[in-house]
Amino acid sequence: MNAEIRRAGLDALFRPGSIAVIGASDDPRKIGGRPIRYMLEAKSAVKVYPVNPTRSQVQGLTAYPTAAAIPDQVDQAIIAVPARQAEAAVADACAAGVRSIVMFSAGFAEAGDEGAAAQTRIMKMIRDAGARMIGPNAMGSFNTVDRVFSTFSTAMDRGTPAVGRVGMVSQSGAVGSYLQNLVISRGMAISKFVATGNEADVQAAECLEWMAQDPDTDVLMLYMEGCRNGPALIGALRTARRMKKPVIVFKAGRTEAGQTVAASHTGALAGSVQVFDAVLREAGVYSCQTLTEMVDVTYACAQGRLPVDKTLAIVTVSGGVGVMSTDAAMEAGIALPPVSEATLAEIQKELPLAVGLNPVDTTAQTVGDRAMLTRAVERVLRDRPFGSAMLFFANAGRNARDMEILSGPLRALRAEFPETQLALCVQTTPEFRSQIEELGYLVFEDPVFCVKALAAAAELSAVRRRPLVTPQIEALAPVVLTSSPDEARSKELLAAAGLHFAQERVAANADEAAAAAEAMGYPVVLKVLSPQIAHKSEVGGVALNLADATAVRAAFDRVVSNAAAAAPAADIRGVTVAQMIRGGTQTIIGAHRDPTFGPVVMFGLGGIYTEVLKDTVLRTAPVTHEAALEMIRSIRAFAILDGARGQEKADLDAIAGAIVRVSQFIAAQGPEVESVEINPFIALPEGGVGVDALIQVKA
Amino acid sequence: MNAEIRRAGLDALFRPGSIAVIGASDDPRKIGGRPIRYMLEAKSAVKVYPVNPTRSQVQGLTAYPTAAAIPDQVDQAIIAVPARQAEAAVADACAAGVRSIVMFSAGFAEAGDEGAAAQTRIMKMIRDAGARMIGPNAMGSFNTVDRVFSTFSTAMDRGTPAVGRVGMVSQSGAVGSYLQNLVISRGMAISKFVATGNEADVQAAECLEWMAQDPDTDVLMLYMEGCRNGPALIGALRTARRMKKPVIVFKAGRTEAGQTVAASHTGALAGSVQVFDAVLREAGVYSCQTLTEMVDVTYACAQGRLPVDKTLAIVTVSGGVGVMSTDAAMEAGIALPPVSEATLAEIQKELPLAVGLNPVDTTAQTVGDRAMLTRAVERVLRDRPFGSAMLFFANAGRNARDMEILSGPLRALRAEFPETQLALCVQTTPEFRSQIEELGYLVFEDPVFCVKALAAAAELSAVRRRPLVTPQIEALAPVVLTSSPDEARSKELLAAAGLHFAQERVAANADEAAAAAEAMGYPVVLKVLSPQIAHKSEVGGVALNLADATAVRAAFDRVVSNAAAAAPAADIRGVTVAQMIRGGTQTIIGAHRDPTFGPVVMFGLGGIYTEVLKDTVLRTAPVTHEAALEMIRSIRAFAILDGARGQEKADLDAIAGAIVRVSQFIAAQGPEVESVEINPFIALPEGGVGVDALIQVKA
Repeated sequence: MNAEIRRAGLDALFRPGSIAVIGASDDPRKIGGRPIRYMLEAKSAVKVYPVNPTRSQVQGLTAYPTAAAIPDQVDQAIIAVPARQAEAAVADACAAGVRSIVMFSAGFAEAGDEGAAAQTRIMKMIRDAGARMIGPNAMGSFNTVDRVFSTFSTAMDRGTPAVGRVGMVSQSGAVGSYLQNLVISRGMAISKFVATGNEADVQAAECLEWMAQDPDTDVLMLYMEGCRNGPALIGALRTARRMKKPVIVFKAGRTEAGQTVAASHTGALAGSVQVFDAVLREAGVYSCQTLTEMVDVTYACAQGRLPVDKTLAIVTVSGGVGVMSTDAAMEAGIALPPVSEATLAEIQKELPLAVGLNPVDTTAQTVGDRAMLTRAVERVLRDRPFGSAMLFFANAGRNARDMEILSGPLRALRAEFPETQLALCVQTTPEFRSQIEELGYLVFEDPVFCVKALAAAAELSAVRRRPLVTPQIEALAPVVLTSSPDEARSKELLAAAGLHFAQERVAANADEAAAAAEAMGYPVVLKVLSPQIAHKSEVGGVALNLADATAVRAAFDRVVSNAAAAAPAADIRGVTVAQMIRGGTQTIIGAHRDPTFGPVVMFGLGGIYTEVLKDTVLRTAPVTHEAALEMIRSIRAFAILDGARGQEKADLDAIAGAIVRVSQFIAAQGPEVESVEINPFIALPEGGVGVDALIQVKA
Repeated sequence: MNAEIRRAGLDALFRPGSIAVIGASDDPRKIGGRPIRYMLEAKSAVKVYPVNPTRSQVQGLTAYPTAAAIPDQVDQAIIAVPARQAEAAVADACAAGVRSIVMFSAGFAEAGDEGAAAQTRIMKMIRDAGARMIGPNAMGSFNTVDRVFSTFSTAMDRGTPAVGRVGMVSQSGAVGSYLQNLVISRGMAISKFVATGNEADVQAAECLEWMAQDPDTDVLMLYMEGCRNGPALIGALRTARRMKKPVIVFKAGRTEAGQTVAASHTGALAGSVQVFDAVLREAGVYSCQTLTEMVDVTYACAQGRLPVDKTLAIVTVSGGVGVMSTDAAMEAGIALPPVSEATLAEIQKELPLAVGLNPVDTTAQTVGDRAMLTRAVERVLRDRPFGSAMLFFANAGRNARDMEILSGPLRALRAEFPETQLALCVQTTPEFRSQIEELGYLVFEDPVFCVKALAAAAELSAVRRRPLVTPQIEALAPVVLTSSPDEARSKELLAAAGLHFAQERVAANADEAAAAAEAMGYPVVLKVLSPQIAHKSEVGGVALNLADATAVRAAFDRVVSNAAAAAPAADIRGVTVAQMIRGGTQTIIGAHRDPTFGPVVMFGLGGIYTEVLKDTVLRTAPVTHEAALEMIRSIRAFAILDGARGQEKADLDAIAGAIVRVSQFIAAQGPEVESVEINPFIALPEGGVGVDALIQVKA
């Protein structure tokens, strides 16, 4: 299917001129009645054609026996019939020439083999017709701007939603619908919504891409359980970043048990949690763990103003809230630059017990006159520019008298500091909440949630300002491999890609071993060479730290006879003689091909750090040198490379260079190259060197 | 002050028969007017005597010029005068013979040296009078059962609070007041409340102890920034546990920046975060990081029913919510035991697309008739006993028709499963929320918060069932030390307390060294012995792995001459000869005296694990053997001791035994012994042995 058809199908999904509702119901509460009711209620300009062979009218509209019988161009068909009638309905829709189908019907791939087969047949019809489909088993989509409601979501029982600028993509209809309600309850409104159901055709990533380009959408929410097309998701997230639209993501299925439930729910392979996390982190999105957090952060981004930097002022009537908010700010990575002592002294003229330079605690002195509070806030905000400010005014928002006193000064503050994101943290009634919001303030109840949301908005804003770097895949010649190469060949291939390894030679006898050692310089290591012996140490097949030719000759005889004794059937071909690397820190540089997201590169310290403490970091490959340095710095044990406990600092640029080379190597290979591992890669005070390497090829 | 006076003072704080309000105001909005207004509004039976020299009546009550002039026994005085009049007011209260003072007045220790001096003078008067005081700078206390409102909290502007069973202790008045509002908004009610202000006399821990024993209080909330009396806090938490009352704690000041703000706020030393965490964990309380979490968990505990075990059933109309709730359950440590396939098959008779054994996802099939949902829930709960159940019914709670259908079946479920904690997770209106709560259900909006709160309640319930073990301090003879002993003496003292060390002897010359080695067996280690040389390796003063007498003699000469060359002024007394311990894993066992909580014991792996990865665990000392085993198992790197990467498993009982001995040792010592460290303690496959030890004594 070409890109134009793909795109036209999505246009016809979100912005159709006409819709046929196959399985239209006269009952406005039934699934087949709801979209008609919603569009009638919304006074939609979209032409709606009910299709129902048993009625001439549906909800007051002329009904047609089939979609093909509609005497008009039909852009979209909604299918709301039982599963057994769905194939006929799709055939009808295709005959009517629709570009897009929204399939509510359930009982397909999610319901077992028979359903999966039906889904495959339906997809063939749709592909042949050059159309696109949302679903099956989808709650559908809507577009508040153009009043298109191709959904049976009961969230519309609150009334068809107002026009807003938040785009929402959900793999779960019920989660999307619930989120929609939470978003509306928070005073926000949605531009476009889609719940993608079984994703037989259109997937969440493609919808996100469409919304990222939609001029009516400013902020994107994505609920996801698993991704069927990693590159499409990465692409959509990059488009959002290029369009400077914050993306707030809830990825469910973080635990093994959660992934099992996800697999039986949306059927999408949940994939590696660590790789998914890496993709989201690289994309600069905000990842949430609760719906509350998701709504909070969206709310902080959706008011048309994002913090210009990562600084926060806190003015509070409660010292305790100052303490917990400071904890939250430190943990969320937003700075609390102090105001001057002179500013505090000014505040103390009116509020003698006021304390602190940021947070500024006005204490309970303002209970009698809340206007003293806003004067203190003004002094703080005049002291220096702040990206955001949180004003904790306790219960002021419950109280008509306080609100009367405060609304004028709050309006004046808003006008005086147009650049600063202002949030009021108060307990409030719904009415006062709306009033405060209309003044241009965010309103939160929980101070820690407030700080976290402001910090998230500041970070999403910072991401928008950072340049979007696309690491180029170098034109390395891909190696052609039909089976996994041995260690020596793996090193050759990686050395050709620019990696450095300890010098190493094969020696068939003691004389050759001694000559090799003389040529490369002492000390050296001898390792027995035999395709049958994988664990060389265990058979006594390794000799370390050999200082001269005599030692090398003796060691040759010893390791070969040890190996022969331990593995009598092994074909012993001699030894490898290698430079012995002294000092440094053992690290691991690896790469593998993730089934969803493709090549990724991994870094960690050797041995226990990786195997027991799981102290590793991943990125999609290839990476830039800067990204590789970030990877190195992000591991918990980084201090070990940075000279902890009196050790020499490792050459971080050398490690980063090796990570870049491995990432370019895997990115250049065909899909048959499954993984690469340099273990250990010894990080030295100057440079670094690989000691062992393995490339694994798909069998 | 004896315990009886202390206790009588708290009784007079929370349950006075009569109160003098010094600084009484006729204006019911002023700080000195509010408590009178609250008690009048609440039709309190407490006798309230306004004290105001300029008025004969205050808010309709007869006023007195001084408290001493009141012709009645006065149990409590509230002081609501400016700081400069506060000393006179205290003198008056003492003259009136009060047992308890609630001091609203601010401007004391929190306001600088002058205020601190005034606070000291006030405390002397109060001690001399045998009274107790809350404050100064305190928001005060209240008792809803007996209608005592010794507070100026504006939270009462919503009306004097109803009688409930939640006790609340807060070091911050504004946080307490805000929390009180959040608790009331959540449909709960408070029994006793206190905000302790400057804590010149009565501290938070003592109030918690009082409430733990209060028959009208079932659940305890504690907001704390720093603890002035660690043993009192530990005692109060133990009382709460003995009385089987869940305690929910918010400890603010987790970060360094937060601690700095806390120090200027409540003035209480924030103390070591790690020790505070250990104390709370050992006490079996629930620690929160947000006010929302604190209110959620209290809510889950305050309905008179706690989960009988840590099992959770999830029935959901949304598969996606099933996924995120499963993640949350796994992370919160509550189990999701599956129902039988037969039960699912029963459910599928009515809901053919239903899927999953726990969570059970009914899908969107119940949109038309929500009663199908409760029938599914009944089948799940009949399948096997569950401690808790979360029913995710999406937007059902917004909808009058759904509520009409659901309320009968929900009532029937509640009656059929009286033991199970039932929570409904829905978006709802305030009216429907109350209706559902009246049926005996908890109501949450965020499914992850719901699961976390149910898991917390289940854990708090499990804590109540576990026996409260008090490790006895053994009658070890305390050592008398005036300065820190050297390594050899440290080991002697610890060996006398039951710890094992590698054998070691002092040798003044090469012959003595060889003789010592012969006696203890090879291999041995030699270390130069000099009070001036602390870092022996750095001067070449250590020789490892010496296999015979010749090697020992040579090594003696080498380490002594190396040391002499490196430190010509050092008094070199010879060497120590020690058994060389091969294999095993280096651990650290330490103990120190926390300024707040007293002796604590620490365990971690040696070197980088402790110094760089901070992978250590603390407990208050002494510990039981079981507690020591829990400590060992709780470190991140535990797998290293448990045989990861083909290593031999360490003898955990031997490590635990050593931890117990160190914990008993520090607990038996006087305050001059500041710390003990055995580093390394080598954990072996059988047994374990200390290699180096140091006891530090206060200079």
